Amino acid sequence: MSDASGFLLHLDSGADRRAEVSVTRRLTGLFARSWRERHGGAGYRYRDLVAEPVPLVGSGYVALGTRVERQGVVPLEKVAALVEGDEEEREWALTLPLTAELRAAGTVLLGVPMYNFGVPAALKAWIDRVSFPGAYTDPDSGRPLLGGTRVVVVAACGGGYGPGTPREGCDFQVPYLRAYFGNLGVAEDELHVVRAELTRAGDIPGLAGFQDLAADSLTAARAAVAELAVRPHRGLA
Amino acid sequence: MSDASGFLLHLDSGADRRAEVSVTRRLTGLFARSWRERHGGAGYRYRDLVAEPVPLVGSGYVALGTRVERQGVVPLEKVAALVEGDEEEREWALTLPLTAELRAAGTVLLGVPMYNFGVPAALKAWIDRVSFPGAYTDPDSGRPLLGGTRVVVVAACGGGYGPGTPREGCDFQVPYLRAYFGNLGVAEDELHVVRAELTRAGDIPGLAGFQDLAADSLTAARAAVAELAVRPHRGLA
Repeated sequence: MSDASGFLLHLDSGADRRAEVSVTRRLTGLFARSWRERHGGAGYRYRDLVAEPVPLVGSGYVALGTRVERQGVVPLEKVAALVEGDEEEREWALTLPLTAELRAAGTVLLGVPMYNFGVPAALKAWIDRVSFPGAYTDPDSGRPLLGGTRVVVVAACGGGYGPGTPREGCDFQVPYLRAYFGNLGVAEDELHVVRAELTRAGDIPGLAGFQDLAADSLTAARAAVAELAVRPHRGLA
Repeated sequence: MSDASGFLLHLDSGADRRAEVSVTRRLTGLFARSWRERHGGAGYRYRDLVAEPVPLVGSGYVALGTRVERQGVVPLEKVAALVEGDEEEREWALTLPLTAELRAAGTVLLGVPMYNFGVPAALKAWIDRVSFPGAYTDPDSGRPLLGGTRVVVVAACGGGYGPGTPREGCDFQVPYLRAYFGNLGVAEDELHVVRAELTRAGDIPGLAGFQDLAADSLTAARAAVAELAVRPHRGLA
């Protein structure tokens, strides 16, 4: 059956689209299969942010966003009336569908490898576009619109960035996404992070000694993803 | 005169290309003008990462990078011999010029607004591409090749993210770039960050009380940029 309280929006941002290579794509695929078995395919939306990149925001986006922001919170359906000129119109046409899609999703599933200590440019391009001023705030109450949305971040990193590791301070991936979605209004207990660590242990000579830890981390991530995919959440209650 | 020890590589990543609007573009422009007056135009290279976006890295980049990484540090000029297939060839053709350019630069000047707590997707696309495995390590000595490179980050943020502010923990822009360039081998005393804060104070009703602070911050940033543009550095000694 389809889910009346919102669909699953599945976003992948791993550069390597070969499923046998991408850890995050394998893990999000596992979640999505399990979810579809339970809820049917009708409520499933997929975006490959690498195969079909979200265009970078430009001057028209900034100009329109600034005009909107000066007015406070403008309902999404009233933004079009504030658009001036062709460039802003183009930008808004690129922005509205992605923003509306995020608002309507019951669950957002993100596959996010760590690239150079941060999230992939492919994902940041989506973030920079969907984060239109005021789009996730109720214009009447001022309350967040994503308060009932579940966000599942499936993260991978080539090395280890946990507490006590030499690179503890270099993790700008998971803490970043927590800050970003928290600010967007996603509730703390609806933001789930599953991370597979040391995924490059088989490739990088210096990490060869960590292959067992990497395998354990992947096994734990698979189990966590499988469990999350069938767990009910507030939005579905 | 042109500078034998490396050119100025100027990168802008602000979405709004209107110079009267973009704080980072105005500030990097100030630096670049002053630098050119001193050193001439021959050693100046400009990239607008929004007008001409760096394509997202794809499967071929990952496949080639992984093959290279398994061998340890491969000299940049020997990577081409390891390329397999059309896709990797395309990826390497996009990567080599940008990587070689960064290696050859004496000074790298980056204009970096904060978008959604992080660096713009436009800049991250450049970072994800130029950060090819081993490209900034001397294959013989293992030492960093960017040890004499000066990096000037001209950052802007719409709000305040300094110590003691409510958003202190949300700054994934400047700390990120410090970690990234530090890991790349840029010396700590050659990494300069100038930041204009509260640049949205005139646009966002809730920040209206900070307009004086914003003006002071911009004045200080202009002075810092002007001073850095004429200061000699180790690489130029």
